Amino acid sequence: MKQKNVLILGGLGFIGKNLYTALLADGYSVTIVADRVDDADGFLTHEVKKHVVQGSILDRDFLEKQIVGFDIIYSLAGRSGASDSIRDPYADLDRNLKGHLNILEACRKHNPNAIIVFPSSRLVYGKPKYNPVNEVHPLTPESIYAIHKLTVEHYYLLYQQLYNIKSVILRISNPYGPYQKFGSNHYGILNWFVHKALTGEVIEIYGEGEQKRDFLHIDDLVNVLRACIHSPVMFGKIYNVGFGRGISIRETVELIVKHVPGSRAVFKPWPEVDRKIETGDYISDISKLDKDIGWSPAIGFEEGIQATVRFYDKSRT
Amino acid sequence: MKQKNVLILGGLGFIGKNLYTALLADGYSVTIVADRVDDADGFLTHEVKKHVVQGSILDRDFLEKQIVGFDIIYSLAGRSGASDSIRDPYADLDRNLKGHLNILEACRKHNPNAIIVFPSSRLVYGKPKYNPVNEVHPLTPESIYAIHKLTVEHYYLLYQQLYNIKSVILRISNPYGPYQKFGSNHYGILNWFVHKALTGEVIEIYGEGEQKRDFLHIDDLVNVLRACIHSPVMFGKIYNVGFGRGISIRETVELIVKHVPGSRAVFKPWPEVDRKIETGDYISDISKLDKDIGWSPAIGFEEGIQATVRFYDKSRT
Repeated sequence: MKQKNVLILGGLGFIGKNLYTALLADGYSVTIVADRVDDADGFLTHEVKKHVVQGSILDRDFLEKQIVGFDIIYSLAGRSGASDSIRDPYADLDRNLKGHLNILEACRKHNPNAIIVFPSSRLVYGKPKYNPVNEVHPLTPESIYAIHKLTVEHYYLLYQQLYNIKSVILRISNPYGPYQKFGSNHYGILNWFVHKALTGEVIEIYGEGEQKRDFLHIDDLVNVLRACIHSPVMFGKIYNVGFGRGISIRETVELIVKHVPGSRAVFKPWPEVDRKIETGDYISDISKLDKDIGWSPAIGFEEGIQATVRFYDKSRT
Repeated sequence: MKQKNVLILGGLGFIGKNLYTALLADGYSVTIVADRVDDADGFLTHEVKKHVVQGSILDRDFLEKQIVGFDIIYSLAGRSGASDSIRDPYADLDRNLKGHLNILEACRKHNPNAIIVFPSSRLVYGKPKYNPVNEVHPLTPESIYAIHKLTVEHYYLLYQQLYNIKSVILRISNPYGPYQKFGSNHYGILNWFVHKALTGEVIEIYGEGEQKRDFLHIDDLVNVLRACIHSPVMFGKIYNVGFGRGISIRETVELIVKHVPGSRAVFKPWPEVDRKIETGDYISDISKLDKDIGWSPAIGFEEGIQATVRFYDKSRT
């Protein structure tokens, strides 16, 4: 079998770095595209750099040339942050919506046989009307970020319908684990808590910390991303990817504090914007993915937290 | 009661002209904004011109100044055409999506108390899974145009939730009647057929013409648009606006041919793009609007066709 060529757009982000490492181990030929190439965490070794191309999905000419010849394209480029998107909807519109139209148009013209994997978000559901949330749950996105994720889902489905460009849409819950870059709170809340604990900062919990989240270890998410390559059953479909269990913010913080000696947490009132877009308890129903490809998370929650603490503790020193 | 100030963005389009005439008769102070001001059909009298401001919703500075002081804003600007949007998704993105973000941001900053009325489309439903289609029908938009309409619905709902900017969302079926400008087939199919019949062109019916549409006379739509001003029950809600009956393309054409002496129709195979985005029979369930404001269509179908034929026949001479 011919070795597959894989392109990871936005490959130097949290998900991208973990995916790159796994796909390389799988034996694929992997190319990363990133708009900024800096090396905060030692990921960019001399060897890795050979596989990195600097460029933006907002640059249509670049994209049309770059996209040629790849069998699988992970469209991870963009930026996270529901609160951010409300503060600057136009930036979110460009990066998280128009950028994906650029990817699809480039594929339509120059690589219509590629399979595209799009990481959507559990935020497209908005405040859950029931838990666990399955894929037919009503869609009431409550931030510009979530609205644009939903719009892009429709783009991918439409291009499949019109042009037979195959894609897989994953509604990801709250991933955590190695290789997230820190410096602001736009990142995964669990990783952010671990970072605070390790750097001696007090962890701030909004409200009572009773709201439940579905925290998924990045290795489990990467296994789903890998499966997309050789699972035609997934093409054109939408899947929840999560842990399948709800864990409260309070319980999460308690586990982190347990595994980071000397760390501590305080409770704090909700900031206004965050309170408004807080979605309440969220738990993924992940049975569709299990049914179609036999996937379920392999990493236990406390085990995942321990591994995460170890990684960031080591990468600090 | 203080006279309300009304702004019609895109007020020289088909819906805008009919709405302007009705609101003026109601005694409102009405201002029209249009990006192009030309007078193809005699609508722009000296008196009307005094109420027209030239400008684009894509010009944020213009919009932020223009939007101040109005009680009601009809956001009719944009362009129709599902097929067109597929041929040029970027143009649709700018005019039919970003333009509305501009309106909302301008209102957030400079006129947060305005009520905004947004004309969405029955196309957000995609191919109906059942008929008549009510407002909780699944949403599977099948063109860039329809995807963007749905995105903008979410924008309006979000800005109400975040900033209490009140809006009314109307999912309009297929309006027809006076004051549509011709010259291409981006316009309402019924009006387009009438235009062809009157100009001696053969009416082309795709397939067998059995597909049913929900044709709504513009005066009935205008009555709903007028009602938005003084119906707080409608704020923050989504309503179907339609005739509530499905009429086949074939039956429609037969009625037009009956009322335009010498006109004729032929059957033609479906063009590829149109066939792909053809949504099948569509009939609006309009009971929610009836329940909330007691509205139902007043103009019969044959009566509406006769009035439409009379208008365009007269405006040609």
